[in-house]
Amino acid sequence: MKKLINRPEDVVREELAGIALAHAGRLEVHTDPHWIARADAPVRGKVAIVSGGGSGHEPLHGGFVGRGMLDAACPGEVFTSPTPDQVLAATQAVDGGAGVLHIVKNYTGDVMNFEMAADLARDGGLTVDQVVIADDVAVEDSLFTAGRRGVGATLLAEKICGAAAEEGRPLRDVASLCRAVGERSRSMGVALTSCTVPMNGKPTFELGDDEMEIGIGIHGEPGRERRPLAAASEVVDILAAAVADDLPFRSGDRVLALVNGMGGTPLMELYVVYGELHRFLGERGVAIARNLVGSFATSLDMAGCSITLLRLDDELTRLWDAPVDTPGLRWGA
Amino acid sequence: MKKLINRPEDVVREELAGIALAHAGRLEVHTDPHWIARADAPVRGKVAIVSGGGSGHEPLHGGFVGRGMLDAACPGEVFTSPTPDQVLAATQAVDGGAGVLHIVKNYTGDVMNFEMAADLARDGGLTVDQVVIADDVAVEDSLFTAGRRGVGATLLAEKICGAAAEEGRPLRDVASLCRAVGERSRSMGVALTSCTVPMNGKPTFELGDDEMEIGIGIHGEPGRERRPLAAASEVVDILAAAVADDLPFRSGDRVLALVNGMGGTPLMELYVVYGELHRFLGERGVAIARNLVGSFATSLDMAGCSITLLRLDDELTRLWDAPVDTPGLRWGA
Repeated sequence: MKKLINRPEDVVREELAGIALAHAGRLEVHTDPHWIARADAPVRGKVAIVSGGGSGHEPLHGGFVGRGMLDAACPGEVFTSPTPDQVLAATQAVDGGAGVLHIVKNYTGDVMNFEMAADLARDGGLTVDQVVIADDVAVEDSLFTAGRRGVGATLLAEKICGAAAEEGRPLRDVASLCRAVGERSRSMGVALTSCTVPMNGKPTFELGDDEMEIGIGIHGEPGRERRPLAAASEVVDILAAAVADDLPFRSGDRVLALVNGMGGTPLMELYVVYGELHRFLGERGVAIARNLVGSFATSLDMAGCSITLLRLDDELTRLWDAPVDTPGLRWGA
Repeated sequence: MKKLINRPEDVVREELAGIALAHAGRLEVHTDPHWIARADAPVRGKVAIVSGGGSGHEPLHGGFVGRGMLDAACPGEVFTSPTPDQVLAATQAVDGGAGVLHIVKNYTGDVMNFEMAADLARDGGLTVDQVVIADDVAVEDSLFTAGRRGVGATLLAEKICGAAAEEGRPLRDVASLCRAVGERSRSMGVALTSCTVPMNGKPTFELGDDEMEIGIGIHGEPGRERRPLAAASEVVDILAAAVADDLPFRSGDRVLALVNGMGGTPLMELYVVYGELHRFLGERGVAIARNLVGSFATSLDMAGCSITLLRLDDELTRLWDAPVDTPGLRWGA
């Protein structure tokens, strides 16, 4: 295992310490239990948005805490759900009196622990709603999931709901937008290499030198099939067809296209993939109205990428374009 | 070789096509010869800043084209200098009447070709100045370099000079700031794995499963030494001591610290490194006043990182903080 870390058992704690130092004044990193919050939380009168999940997917979710996106994120250990006490502490701390939305990727442990935290928060008098994102079309049930896995659409939901909350929209509306993003989004990924979990010290799965795994999960869960490594054009045809056929995305649709690197894939390759995706969608009459190319929902050091499409409407587009100020996504009005 | 590309000989052309599509309206990508410019170039009355170099270091340089940073970038083939005609075309096109600054990483081919382009541009009546960045303390001469190599400080210079140009400062001042950034910056990197150049199809160098290369170049050029892979704390002690001792950075200094991923290293590890760098500098009384953690000057899919320190003063800090709007760096006032 080749990683720039110290003891594997300390990697999340030390990563969080680094985040706290690098983003002091913008983020506050709480420990025991661990959660990351906007430095100005709670924001009075604003719906608060909390997400989280296992570490190893950075910048998801901690890198998306800030104005216009998340109020707090709860990082679990590597590829391990955050505990209910993390989520409860974050929820209680960032509630600004207008309720809290939990955005949860669909993994059994995450859903269970966020639900438990929501119940406890409600017992304490808070209003909490939960939206589960399940956008990965690769498999219907998975190693850690009943139903589809949640992947790239999660950060789109976080951005769009963050903008709506910033506008002062009530919890009911923000949650409804979150469900809309989930329903209108589809994703699928490919791995060229396995990731290596620090505590395991060896690759999660073996993949031949000439193989790729189509439909990989972001923890290295099995996908749809193994195939010989192919050209980017063919890889995109496979991924994009699976994604586009599922909703389906149709001629005339305007979409947000996310080409997401898995952590070990350089930007050069992601732009090649983006060009191929543009070609593929163009052939179907689908227009990319907004895009995001980079490594946003990663799987440690896995080489590979995922494609996420969100069918836009005017409101979603406007909320996507609204200012955001986080370590991982940042733009002005 | 496992890469999300089509034919290796097409990768730069296809990457540029992807960049053009992803950033339409903000960037213009010209072909034959290739260069990337701000969509609003030339900006009348503003000093124009042009950089460039081999591809494979993205987002450097094309990702730093935009308001507050570069007016144009000239991407060569992978790890290959841009040709004089690329640089000349970009220089002529973005000149806004106030002269053009070339910011060049110190590689023999880059320096030669930028100089040739500058001479040709001057023959055509333009005012061109050139600053060569040579911040890598690892080796005094290298495979492709007389003198030290230019690495991470280049993007710091691009940002700071871009801000100065945006303020309407004359070419003389912008070039002088660029030299100051070069003189006040030092860098060194480490590789845990080699990169693989697409046209070669195999790793540039071999590195044992338990080895790292200290002082690696961004094209895989040999560094100072190979050592057994060590904990992040020890790696940072080695890199940061080499960097800090060289200027030297002293107690009381305020620095900008760049922890830069080489392309195959996830953010999790970079934050661990940042935490260790903070500790190291704290022990020497050096305060990190600004920081940047992420993959900005990469080496294709190499796993590893580099550390760059810039000794700040009030003016450099103010210019660093000024708004920037590029695909790779973006923040508001």
